[in-house]
Amino acid sequence: MTARTLTPRQKIFYEIIFGTETPAGKWFDICLIAIILTSVLIVMLDSIWDLHAEWGWLFWQIEWGFTVLFTLEYLVRIWCSPNRKAYVLSIYGVVDLCAILPTYIALFFPQAASLLIVRLLRILRIFRVLRLIAFLNEANMLAGALRRSARKIFVFFSMMIIITMIFGCLLYVVEGPESGFTNIPISIYWAIVTITTVGYGDVVPVTALGRAISATGMLIGYAIIAVPTGIITAELASGLRGNHLTTRNCSQCSRAGHDLDARYCKYCGSDLPALHQEGD
Amino acid sequence: MTARTLTPRQKIFYEIIFGTETPAGKWFDICLIAIILTSVLIVMLDSIWDLHAEWGWLFWQIEWGFTVLFTLEYLVRIWCSPNRKAYVLSIYGVVDLCAILPTYIALFFPQAASLLIVRLLRILRIFRVLRLIAFLNEANMLAGALRRSARKIFVFFSMMIIITMIFGCLLYVVEGPESGFTNIPISIYWAIVTITTVGYGDVVPVTALGRAISATGMLIGYAIIAVPTGIITAELASGLRGNHLTTRNCSQCSRAGHDLDARYCKYCGSDLPALHQEGD
Amino acid sequence: MTARTLTPRQKIFYEIIFGTETPAGKWFDICLIAIILTSVLIVMLDSIWDLHAEWGWLFWQIEWGFTVLFTLEYLVRIWCSPNRKAYVLSIYGVVDLCAILPTYIALFFPQAASLLIVRLLRILRIFRVLRLIAFLNEANMLAGALRRSARKIFVFFSMMIIITMIFGCLLYVVEGPESGFTNIPISIYWAIVTITTVGYGDVVPVTALGRAISATGMLIGYAIIAVPTGIITAELASGLRGNHLTTRNCSQCSRAGHDLDARYCKYCGSDLPALHQEGD
Amino acid sequence: MTARTLTPRQKIFYEIIFGTETPAGKWFDICLIAIILTSVLIVMLDSIWDLHAEWGWLFWQIEWGFTVLFTLEYLVRIWCSPNRKAYVLSIYGVVDLCAILPTYIALFFPQAASLLIVRLLRILRIFRVLRLIAFLNEANMLAGALRRSARKIFVFFSMMIIITMIFGCLLYVVEGPESGFTNIPISIYWAIVTITTVGYGDVVPVTALGRAISATGMLIGYAIIAVPTGIITAELASGLRGNHLTTRNCSQCSRAGHDLDARYCKYCGSDLPALHQEGD
Repeated sequence: MTARTLTPRQKIFYEIIFGTETPAGKWFDICLIAIILTSVLIVMLDSIWDLHAEWGWLFWQIEWGFTVLFTLEYLVRIWCSPNRKAYVLSIYGVVDLCAILPTYIALFFPQAASLLIVRLLRILRIFRVLRLIAFLNEANMLAGALRRSARKIFVFFSMMIIITMIFGCLLYVVEGPESGFTNIPISIYWAIVTITTVGYGDVVPVTALGRAISATGMLIGYAIIAVPTGIITAELASGLRGNHLTTRNCSQCSRAGHDLDARYCKYCGSDLPALHQEGD
Repeated sequence: MTARTLTPRQKIFYEIIFGTETPAGKWFDICLIAIILTSVLIVMLDSIWDLHAEWGWLFWQIEWGFTVLFTLEYLVRIWCSPNRKAYVLSIYGVVDLCAILPTYIALFFPQAASLLIVRLLRILRIFRVLRLIAFLNEANMLAGALRRSARKIFVFFSMMIIITMIFGCLLYVVEGPESGFTNIPISIYWAIVTITTVGYGDVVPVTALGRAISATGMLIGYAIIAVPTGIITAELASGLRGNHLTTRNCSQCSRAGHDLDARYCKYCGSDLPALHQEGD
Repeated sequence: MTARTLTPRQKIFYEIIFGTETPAGKWFDICLIAIILTSVLIVMLDSIWDLHAEWGWLFWQIEWGFTVLFTLEYLVRIWCSPNRKAYVLSIYGVVDLCAILPTYIALFFPQAASLLIVRLLRILRIFRVLRLIAFLNEANMLAGALRRSARKIFVFFSMMIIITMIFGCLLYVVEGPESGFTNIPISIYWAIVTITTVGYGDVVPVTALGRAISATGMLIGYAIIAVPTGIITAELASGLRGNHLTTRNCSQCSRAGHDLDARYCKYCGSDLPALHQEGD
Repeated sequence: MTARTLTPRQKIFYEIIFGTETPAGKWFDICLIAIILTSVLIVMLDSIWDLHAEWGWLFWQIEWGFTVLFTLEYLVRIWCSPNRKAYVLSIYGVVDLCAILPTYIALFFPQAASLLIVRLLRILRIFRVLRLIAFLNEANMLAGALRRSARKIFVFFSMMIIITMIFGCLLYVVEGPESGFTNIPISIYWAIVTITTVGYGDVVPVTALGRAISATGMLIGYAIIAVPTGIITAELASGLRGNHLTTRNCSQCSRAGHDLDARYCKYCGSDLPALHQEGD
C-alpha cells in the first residue's frame, strides 16, 4: 500500500500546503507565490554590481532567510505527505529541492576558489521560479496540444537542423574566415540566427554570392515559420472543436454529431441518451 | 435614477456629439478625427529640433488652440450627457481628460525646473490618439477573441517569462560581464530580445557555449511563436464557424444555436422551422 | 455599346496577345515573361557601378530595344482591343504605360541637371515586374481572403499604429536624444522596427527603464503577431471549407451539407439535384 | 521485367539494409544514423582551426575510415537491390553517392592548387546528413500539406519578390550609395532582410524618407507573414479534419469518404453499413 494514514495534525497541514480548495490553502499558495517572486527578485538585484557593493550583506541575509524558510516548507511537505517517496521523486519535489540546495552547496565551496562555479550555484536559485508552473492549471491544455503534435514538431526540427547545416556550410565555403565565418559551428550559429529571423548582425555575409544564398535562406525560413504554427493551430482548433461535440448516437436514427448541451436528436427529434462520465 | 432628462438644446448637442447616425453626428466625428490627427502631428513635428527652433512659437500657439478646443468639447460633453458621472468615469471620459490636462499642468511647472517632467507632460498629449479607438467598432470582435483566450495567453506568457529568465541566467553565468551580460536584468532583456526574434545585436554571445545555448533558445522561441498564433487562430476560427449556425429559434422553447442541418430542436425535440434562402 | 467589332486581323492579334488558350497565345505570354524578367535584370545590373562603367553603353542600347518593343506591344494592344478605353484605364493598361514612359521622360530631362530624378525615372522601369501579376491566376483566391478580412486588418493596423506611437513616445521621453531617440518620428520608427521584430539595432535603448519598456513592447508585439495570422488563417480555412460543401438541399428530406461530388442524399438516399452554374 | 530474382544471401542483406521490420534491420538503421552523425561531427570539428592544427591527421584518418565504410555500404546496396538501376537513380541512391564522392575527388585535386574548391569538396561530405531524411516517415504528411499548397505558396513568393524589388528600388533611389544602398541587388538584399523580419542592421536607412518607406515595408511584411502561415494551417487543418471522415466503404460501389452522419452512399444512393464503436 503506497499511501500512509495521516494523523489529524498531518491532515490539517496537508490540506493547507497541498490543497487549494480551503481558504487557508489558497492563502498559503498566494503567500508562496509572493515569497518565490521576492526571492527571485533578490537574486536578480544581487547580480547588479552597484547594488551588490552597497547592499550585498543585506541580500546575503535575506537569501539565507528564504533558504531556511523553503527548507522548513520542504521538510513539512515530506512530513505531511501521504506518500513521501512519490512526492520526493515527483517533478515538484525535485524542483523544491533544487530551490534550496545551491545556497547550502555554496557554503562548502569557498568563494575565492572558483568564482564561476560559485556564481553558477548562486544563480541556480533562480530556478525557484519553476515552482510557479505548479500553479498554472491551464498549461495542461497547451501541453496536450504540444504532446499530440510532438512527432510532427520533431520531424520539423530535424528538417530545420538539416537546412541550417546546409546553409551554414554553404556560407562557410562562400564567405570564408575573413567575413566572420571562421568555422562550421559558427556558420551554423549564423544560419540558426538567420532562419529563425532573429538576425543579430554580429556575423553577416559580405560577398554578393553569400548575400544571395542567405536571402534564399531567409525566404525559406520565412516560409517554414508557417509549418510549426500550422501544426499547433490545427491541433488546437481540432481540440476546441472536439470539445463541442459528443460521440453520442441517437438511439432512434443512430446519427452522431450532437452538441454537448443537446437533449433531443436534431435529425429525428427523439430523446438522446444522457451524458455520463465525459472525462477531460 | 441615473439618467437625467435633457433639455431640447442638450438633446441636439447630444445627438451631434455622441450620436453617429445623423449626418451632423457623422460630420462631427470626421472633423474630430481630423483634428486629433492634426494635433498629434503637431506634437510629433515639435519634437524635431530643427522644426522646433524655427516654428516652436507657432506650434505653441496651435497647441493652445487645440487644447482650448478640446476643453470646450469636454465641457459640452459633460453638459449634454444624460448621465454625467457615467461619462466622466468611462474610459472615453478619462481619455478625453488626459488629452487636455498635460498642457495645463505644463503651465504651472516652469520649464527650467525639471525638463524631463515637462517633456513627459507635453508628450502625453499624444495619447489623444487613443480617442480614435472609440471609432473602431470592429475592434470589439478582435477584443472578444482575445478575451476568450486571455487565460491561455496568460499561461503562455508566464511560461515564456520563466523561459527567458532561465536562458538569461544561463547566459549570464556562461558569458559573464565582459561580453555585455553585466547583470541578470540585462541578460533577461537579451533573452526577451532573442526569444521574440527581434535580435538587436547590442548584447550578443561571443563564447562557443553561449552561442550554442542561445541557438537552442532561438529554436525554442521559433517553435513557441506558434502557440499564441495557434490560440488566437483557433478562437477566431471558432467564432467564424459560429456564423454558420443559423439564427432560427425553436417555436416551442425559443432557444437558438441550431446547426444548419438540424430539423428538430436539440433542447425540446419539437420541429424546427424549415430553412429558406439563407444566403451565406 | 462598349465593345467594337474587330476586323479578322485584329481578332487574330487579340487572341495571341490577350488570349491564353491557343498555343500562339501561350507562347506569346511565355516570351513576354522572359523579356520582362530580362529587362528587369538589365536595370539591376546597370545599377552596379563596375558593370555600368564597363557595359553602360550596351545596357543603354538594350534598354532602348526593350522600350521600343514594349511601346509597339502597347500600341498593338490598344489597336486590337475590343474596348480600347477599358484597356487603357485598366490596371494592366496603366502598368503597361508606366513600363515604357520612364525611358522617354529621361530623354527630355538632361542627365546632368537632376541626377536623383533621372535615377528615379530609370528605376521606375523595374515596375515592369508588376506586369507579371496578370499571369498569377491563383492570386485572386489569396486576394479574396485578404479582401474579406480587410476591415479587421485595418482595425488591427490602426491599433498597432497607436501602440507604436505610445511606445515611441515613452522611449523618446525615457531615453532622450543621447541614445539616438532624437525626435518622435525616429522613436516611432524604432517602435515599428521593434514591434515587427525586425530589430536592426541602429537605434537601441541603453537605460534600464528604456530596456524594460521595450522588452514589454516586444512581448506585446510577439503576442499581436498572432492577430493578423489568425484573421487570415480563419478566412482561408473558411474559404477552403466552403469550397467542399454545396448549399444544395435534398428534394426529399431537404437537408443540406452535401459534398460537391455527392449524387445521392447521404441522409435519405434519394437523388440530389444536379449542380449547375457553380462559379469559382 | 524490372525486379531481379535475389539469391538467398542477397535477400538476407536486402532485409537488413533496406528493411526496417526485422530486429537486424532496425539495428542497422540505428547504427547508420549514429555513424552519419559522427562523420558530420568530424567534418564540423575539422573546420575549427585550433582542432584542425592539433588533431588534423586523426580527423583525416577517421574521415577515410568513414568513406571506405560508406563506399562498402553503397556497393552492397547496389549488389543486393532487386532493381539496381532504380536504386542508383533514386534520391537516396544519389545522396548516398554524393556522401562518398567528395573525399575521392579531393584526392585527385592537389590541396595546394585551389584551396577553395578542395574546401568545398570536403564540406560537401556534410550532405551526408541528408541521408537522415529517409528515416523521417512523418515528413511525408508535412510534405503533402506543402505539396497541396504549392501553387498558392508559389504565387505568394512571386508577390513577395515583386514587393521586395519595389521596396529595394525605392530605397536605392531615396538613400543612395552613401547609406550602403550601393546598387539594386544590395537594396533588394536589404528589402528581403527587412520584409522577412531578420533585420541584420548591416544595411540600414538613415534618411527620414527612407525610414518612413522602410517602416511601411516592415508593416506590410508583418501583415504578409500571415499569408503562408494561413495557407499551410488551412491545409493542415483540412487534412486533420479529413481524419473525421470514416473509412466505411459502400457495399454497392465500394467508394469511401463518407461523413460520420451519412446513412446512404452519396455516390450510388444505397445503404451504408452502420457505424459501431468508432473510438475517437
